Amino acid sequence: MKPSISIIKVGGQLIEEEPQLKGLLESFHQIEGLKILVHGGGRRASQLSKALNIPVQFHEGRRITDAATLELAVMVYAGLVNKRIVGMLQAVGSNAIGLSGADGNLILAHQRQNSHIDYGFAGDIDQINVPFLLHLLNQGLSPVVCAITHNGQGQLLNTNADTVAAQLAIALAPHQTVSLKYCFEKSGVCYELDAEDSLIEKLNYKDYQQLCQQGIIKDGMLPKLEQAFTALQHKVSEVAICGTAALPSQSTAKRTNLCL
Amino acid sequence: MKPSISIIKVGGQLIEEEPQLKGLLESFHQIEGLKILVHGGGRRASQLSKALNIPVQFHEGRRITDAATLELAVMVYAGLVNKRIVGMLQAVGSNAIGLSGADGNLILAHQRQNSHIDYGFAGDIDQINVPFLLHLLNQGLSPVVCAITHNGQGQLLNTNADTVAAQLAIALAPHQTVSLKYCFEKSGVCYELDAEDSLIEKLNYKDYQQLCQQGIIKDGMLPKLEQAFTALQHKVSEVAICGTAALPSQSTAKRTNLCL
Repeated sequence: MKPSISIIKVGGQLIEEEPQLKGLLESFHQIEGLKILVHGGGRRASQLSKALNIPVQFHEGRRITDAATLELAVMVYAGLVNKRIVGMLQAVGSNAIGLSGADGNLILAHQRQNSHIDYGFAGDIDQINVPFLLHLLNQGLSPVVCAITHNGQGQLLNTNADTVAAQLAIALAPHQTVSLKYCFEKSGVCYELDAEDSLIEKLNYKDYQQLCQQGIIKDGMLPKLEQAFTALQHKVSEVAICGTAALPSQSTAKRTNLCL
Repeated sequence: MKPSISIIKVGGQLIEEEPQLKGLLESFHQIEGLKILVHGGGRRASQLSKALNIPVQFHEGRRITDAATLELAVMVYAGLVNKRIVGMLQAVGSNAIGLSGADGNLILAHQRQNSHIDYGFAGDIDQINVPFLLHLLNQGLSPVVCAITHNGQGQLLNTNADTVAAQLAIALAPHQTVSLKYCFEKSGVCYELDAEDSLIEKLNYKDYQQLCQQGIIKDGMLPKLEQAFTALQHKVSEVAICGTAALPSQSTAKRTNLCL
């Protein structure tokens, strides 16, 4: 059997507080086989925006990335958050290597074009450097990927981290068995907000659409699940929304498994 | 013959202004053989300190790194400057990969101990991961190394970039022919400040010491030359202080070559 690759996307509260981050990375370390961590930036970017008087702008849930916001995203995602995670993973014994999309030409993107809204330096992914990624993994390294991409012409771009995780999974799927987990502060998708006993253990696309219409799945969960189903449609073997407890290979913790 | 490795240290004005940085990276791209770029942060870190009201503290020319200053250094060096350089190198055709000392456990350091002065999170280098570095180089990648190291226990540390460059050169010297160039906005060491026609083309350690006593070599040049001579004493084949023009392999531009 081909060795499997686990891709774990983390963000939000999980990466903001030291004890939670430590727990997360210990769980990540307990995943057997090849593994990749993809992270967002959480509130640190917004906090720094405020401290530097850079206005945070959104359009339909997507951040508008002007030049100052891009610099800030690069500093926080590729610098502060990425290196902190890498340093902490090294401490628990995972040989991590932090990467942006520019490093080793990992993720090539283009600046998003939209005639109505100028999203600024927002990048939509064109290509993943799969041989480079497989090479690092086969060397025993665990890539820690931030959501900064590049256009190959010297311009860094800000890309959605949920999308980066899904696109890495889709690109690797023809080569190896790939599992993709969107890991957050809850155990999975619930019928009732904050009621863990209403956790949906299996969610198919039809039910997902219905839950969206009913307003049960909303806000940040929407694009995450959209990406998750896209990955499933593109031959990613296993896609789940879960908490930290579900990460280790032997874990039986409840989670939301997606199916078509 | 063993393939040679060129290590280029850059900093200061050279990495601050877009046109100068572009020229520098084009020259770097024209170096034949395996190559590594080591960079400092320049004035961006100090500018950001000011904007965030974080006081910049020095003791005998060495920055004192408290927790806030370390975060800032990680953001600017490992984030902003490193990824900008990597993106621009990709654009000129060099397959660059940005690294801190935590990535792939590249540079292990310990927190500097000093009973008189608390340097905070300043790191002194213990070990370079030579096999990892050689592996990347032999894959055709050009490492772009920032001066953030780690202690292996989850703590990132701030290290002097001149020292990082010298220590990388010394660690690689037993394995391959290594050339080390400290590249800055002038053509080399001059007898008279700002008089390029007084450039010293060959500088030995005895003359260097004399020039220090005479106050001709001073300030930031002192630790740089100290590191440069240390590298030469540890079997690094060629050490020079030079400008951008002296980087390409075929260049005949004047520079200051060091000898013992």
